[in-house]
Amino acid sequence: MKKYVSLFGLLAIVLGVAPSFILDTPPRSFADEGMWTFDNPPVRLLKERYGFTPTQEWLDHVRLSSVRFMDGGSGSFVSPHGLVLTNHHVALGQLQKVSTPQKDYIKDGFYAHSAAEELKCPDLEVNQLISMEDVTQRVLAAVQAGMNDEAALKARKAEIAKIEKESTEKTGLRSDVVLLYQGSEYWLYRYKKYTDLRLVFAPEQQIAFYGGDPDNFTYPRYDIDFALFRVYEDGKPLESQNYLKWNAKGAADGELVFVSGHPGSTARLETVAQIETLRDLALPLVLQTLKRRRDVARQYAAQGPEQARQATGLIFGIENAVKGITGRYQGLLDKNLIGKKQKDEAGFRALVASKPEWQQAYGGAWDTIAQAEAKSREMTKPLRFRSLGWARLSSMADAIVRYVAEVKKPDGERLEGFHDSQLESLRFRLFSPAPVYPQFEEAQLTANLEYCREMLGADDPFIKAVLGGRTPGELAKEAIAGTKLADPAFRKSLVEGGEAAVQASTDALIVLARKTDPFAREMIKWFENNVESVETPAGEKIGKARFAAYGKSTYPDATFTLRLSFGAVKGYPLNGTIAPSKTTLYGLYDRAYSFDLKPPFNLPAPYMDRKSRLNLTTPVDFVSTCDIIGGNSGSPVINRQGDLVGLIFDGNIESLVGDYVYNEENNRAVAVHSAVIIEVLRNLFDAGPVADELEGR
Amino acid sequence: MKKYVSLFGLLAIVLGVAPSFILDTPPRSFADEGMWTFDNPPVRLLKERYGFTPTQEWLDHVRLSSVRFMDGGSGSFVSPHGLVLTNHHVALGQLQKVSTPQKDYIKDGFYAHSAAEELKCPDLEVNQLISMEDVTQRVLAAVQAGMNDEAALKARKAEIAKIEKESTEKTGLRSDVVLLYQGSEYWLYRYKKYTDLRLVFAPEQQIAFYGGDPDNFTYPRYDIDFALFRVYEDGKPLESQNYLKWNAKGAADGELVFVSGHPGSTARLETVAQIETLRDLALPLVLQTLKRRRDVARQYAAQGPEQARQATGLIFGIENAVKGITGRYQGLLDKNLIGKKQKDEAGFRALVASKPEWQQAYGGAWDTIAQAEAKSREMTKPLRFRSLGWARLSSMADAIVRYVAEVKKPDGERLEGFHDSQLESLRFRLFSPAPVYPQFEEAQLTANLEYCREMLGADDPFIKAVLGGRTPGELAKEAIAGTKLADPAFRKSLVEGGEAAVQASTDALIVLARKTDPFAREMIKWFENNVESVETPAGEKIGKARFAAYGKSTYPDATFTLRLSFGAVKGYPLNGTIAPSKTTLYGLYDRAYSFDLKPPFNLPAPYMDRKSRLNLTTPVDFVSTCDIIGGNSGSPVINRQGDLVGLIFDGNIESLVGDYVYNEENNRAVAVHSAVIIEVLRNLFDAGPVADELEGR
Repeated sequence: MKKYVSLFGLLAIVLGVAPSFILDTPPRSFADEGMWTFDNPPVRLLKERYGFTPTQEWLDHVRLSSVRFMDGGSGSFVSPHGLVLTNHHVALGQLQKVSTPQKDYIKDGFYAHSAAEELKCPDLEVNQLISMEDVTQRVLAAVQAGMNDEAALKARKAEIAKIEKESTEKTGLRSDVVLLYQGSEYWLYRYKKYTDLRLVFAPEQQIAFYGGDPDNFTYPRYDIDFALFRVYEDGKPLESQNYLKWNAKGAADGELVFVSGHPGSTARLETVAQIETLRDLALPLVLQTLKRRRDVARQYAAQGPEQARQATGLIFGIENAVKGITGRYQGLLDKNLIGKKQKDEAGFRALVASKPEWQQAYGGAWDTIAQAEAKSREMTKPLRFRSLGWARLSSMADAIVRYVAEVKKPDGERLEGFHDSQLESLRFRLFSPAPVYPQFEEAQLTANLEYCREMLGADDPFIKAVLGGRTPGELAKEAIAGTKLADPAFRKSLVEGGEAAVQASTDALIVLARKTDPFAREMIKWFENNVESVETPAGEKIGKARFAAYGKSTYPDATFTLRLSFGAVKGYPLNGTIAPSKTTLYGLYDRAYSFDLKPPFNLPAPYMDRKSRLNLTTPVDFVSTCDIIGGNSGSPVINRQGDLVGLIFDGNIESLVGDYVYNEENNRAVAVHSAVIIEVLRNLFDAGPVADELEGR
Repeated sequence: MKKYVSLFGLLAIVLGVAPSFILDTPPRSFADEGMWTFDNPPVRLLKERYGFTPTQEWLDHVRLSSVRFMDGGSGSFVSPHGLVLTNHHVALGQLQKVSTPQKDYIKDGFYAHSAAEELKCPDLEVNQLISMEDVTQRVLAAVQAGMNDEAALKARKAEIAKIEKESTEKTGLRSDVVLLYQGSEYWLYRYKKYTDLRLVFAPEQQIAFYGGDPDNFTYPRYDIDFALFRVYEDGKPLESQNYLKWNAKGAADGELVFVSGHPGSTARLETVAQIETLRDLALPLVLQTLKRRRDVARQYAAQGPEQARQATGLIFGIENAVKGITGRYQGLLDKNLIGKKQKDEAGFRALVASKPEWQQAYGGAWDTIAQAEAKSREMTKPLRFRSLGWARLSSMADAIVRYVAEVKKPDGERLEGFHDSQLESLRFRLFSPAPVYPQFEEAQLTANLEYCREMLGADDPFIKAVLGGRTPGELAKEAIAGTKLADPAFRKSLVEGGEAAVQASTDALIVLARKTDPFAREMIKWFENNVESVETPAGEKIGKARFAAYGKSTYPDATFTLRLSFGAVKGYPLNGTIAPSKTTLYGLYDRAYSFDLKPPFNLPAPYMDRKSRLNLTTPVDFVSTCDIIGGNSGSPVINRQGDLVGLIFDGNIESLVGDYVYNEENNRAVAVHSAVIIEVLRNLFDAGPVADELEGR
């Protein structure tokens, strides 16, 4: 039911995207809070706080100029010829895939001096939200009176699959049903899909991710974290009807700005019981797991420069996650935060209890969820570790084994990620020609097996079945040596051969996946029957209670679907002083020389050699009170006129608790300033043509 | 007994310098901790951690190159011709006093292009520590068996006064007996006094205190907070035998450095009961009082540019105190910190209790102190508010009334601050020709009276006696209109006329002081009899217990006497990332343009007009792990060779809890880099001759 974990539902559980059948709390004095759906923009707040009322035209233009990166991020159209702007770190996976031992575009950057030089990405999909339709009545009507929880869940899922399939067939658009307000509303989102994207410009990672892991999730900051792709359709650049005009002046201190993007997931409205599971079990385990994965990747990278190149993207991703999740975890350990959550929940429950009809209808939901959470906590380790997911090839093997089994079933009965409406995107990824590095795969598979054995114990049936007496190292060596899955044509032949071909395959990784698949299915089933089917209706009750008590005056938790945030460009109290609303190129050089140009504070060659060409007063990054979260990376920052003034790339360290609570005092969205992109394109890279296209010259 | 509050003992109580009959805790694994006396340098630690052993010659050279500013700060000789380096903010009081409505040296800075232009300071005294002598046996021998607490305290004080007087008469040097290790040791410190200091160079306050109140006590920082005086003797520049050689390269990241200066006061070894008094009563009241004083000064300053100029120094001082004390107070509210204190104390008490003879001799001391604290808490308001101290003239009137009464008594029976050995310094201040601004005096006196009435209630005998039915505004108006104390010659005539002249005086402020004096004396007496005489011997017992248990392996709490700190130049974890060990001029311009050059981030004209003359990679400020506290402002930072590499001007926000505990992880001393002083002298101010003198060219 949680669309945003779609394809890798189980992986998401392993990675700690915990069940979040979310609940609302009483309305707050909102401040610049909220990730609003485009059908319900914060009109009253905008008018009261900023005297601005967006027109429907404004909203449509912004929506259609925004795109979702299925690699996990956001972006926007920024020229009439299909140029799409996003972050370097959103583009990183593709940069890794188009790089070779001879051409390291992550390290050296990339600039296509002509259309012919634009570099096709192997497996990048972006989505543009074309329409939204409320299908709540239809989904809820699928549940018949007298059904038990399991049957009701099944009926809902079947109806959702049906809606999606019908829509896909009818419109040709990617069609996802999105659960909002914890099941009080279901919406059908239709997307135009683009899969031919070509790289136009990427700066060196050293400037895009300036300051490295230490500066990540912090501010003041000096990152020029952008990349430009061009969308092609039918082999030609897309003539994009909707795009954001570039405003190189940026936004002034205090100015109202908007962020249009795809926040991935928040847990602001979860019950205290659900948050306690995160705090006491899920997040510590996720952090431990990520750190182990990071160490494995670092060890591999330490073997030589080519190994380091291969592992760059993964190490970046894991370090990013470790720092981000650590911030969230620290937030949950803060007694004030959890105390506020407890107080809010108690107040809401008391309000519900004050009306007998509400108490009768909704009052038991919190305890129901708490009981399901208690059950899920006991199963934490099997749920998380009876599956493999570190090596790319073993994940693909799992997906292939599951694919051929699922597509035989009626659409409504399939596992999440394998519905008809989802298969095209899945195949696009599965058949990607991106390079695979067998030694890196082996190192990761070995470590994954060792870690699962450590977590579950050597006597766990999963471990016994998988290892069959061998050591993790032996098994991984055999499996990687004995697989042809690195070849996309082979993957395609298996999928097209269907269940017969997959069952008959002696490919070592497919054999391994056939052993792990039943355990994974058992865990998914257990989770559905014991947690999801219980918490979904309970969450719906809490959502209904909230609507009954307060009306629809708020925004739903994030679901990796398009949202509009708003706020002001504004500094904040920082470590005894105040952080400015923006930084300048002077500050980039200060940070560099403060650390004597030592990594990660060194500067790429153009910044040293061509420094005199730069106007050092140019703003680099800036902050606003816009309410964002992971997934918003690459989102445009837009002014009242609908022009682009910046590019979201991060939140400050104080924003990490934004998973649970928004704090206007010091939660800040960090963006690249529109001026610095033009400044470096023109003066450091002689990329005038791209700058001209952006500026509409 | 607390030399460093000397002259204004009662004022110090009002300002929250609480009684600190301090106690040691068990030795820690020291890290770079400690404000060591020069007779007991941390030889073992320096050898173990840095492989360095200072020679006696090195120690003597550093000590004799260091000076104490009686305005409240530190400094050092930096040329063979008497140049003394300190902070601009230590010099600020004198800059205020030598400025006029026509020449605002605080705002515009000052540079004496020749000896003739050097500007004589009205009442600046600096001290150079010539010798230290252990007089513990003599002081303790003054207490006879069978004396009660009050008698013992009196006997000790009389003996100390005698030692000081003898020494002054014999050597002509300023002679202070200093209580160390909470009475386990008494030392006679002899100082050479210099009172003819002339201003040579001061930058604009805007660059010295760059970033203003927001950036105060924080880092990264870009303050060029220095000032240069020249010491004269017999009308000629002092030929200083000891001075620090200037090393414009500064210290490298990780390098061992030392700070030689005069930390004012710490409370690291106070009992939990004493710290709780600070937390629950003293600090909140002090903050409230300071904020009221600040508001009064700001209101006055808002009347016009000349009023603003008059109030600059005071507002700076109060804002500085508010921010610093707020940091300390926040530290005390931290449950971890207070928890650690409680644990340390419990452990030490258990150790004492484990030996019957220790328990017998020392075990009761903690409860004794706790009882005295409980008593003092009940008297907090009368102790703090039955006296006036905001207006400069009313403080002088108090001092004059007390002076003529005290000098009639035997030296050993006088109030602290009025012993023979102290009178010369007191007269130097009392007869200062520094300007007085009557309207500012009236505003402060009015507000002071209003505030005391608010705190004590209109029926308090002090308030009734002082106001005599008038309003605070009426009284203050009359008092300021009816006083001639602004004239230093009149002050001198009163002091020289003795008690008869003062009793006969109809000067309105002297009349007022005669009314307030009995109340102040009563409170001093009450505090001596009920707190000081009880806590002094109890503190001594705890000190003795510590020596018995652990030996003399540590340093005493700060007492505004010369100390040596050591540490490494080193960044630290900051708000999710790392702070560099130094900043550069690039960063100064970044901060300026980040805030669009708005105050307090604007730049003085030379920094705008002559920017191209500067090498922007020049380091501005740097941090080290050296353990410092208020009073260390202006201290030299010294390398192994004994050369000057920097100038302490602040601690970071994390260092403010240093009053109670030193934390090597993020407690940092902030210093101006030796390079930037030369850079701006030569390139912005054409002050080559001064730079040459500093660099020994």
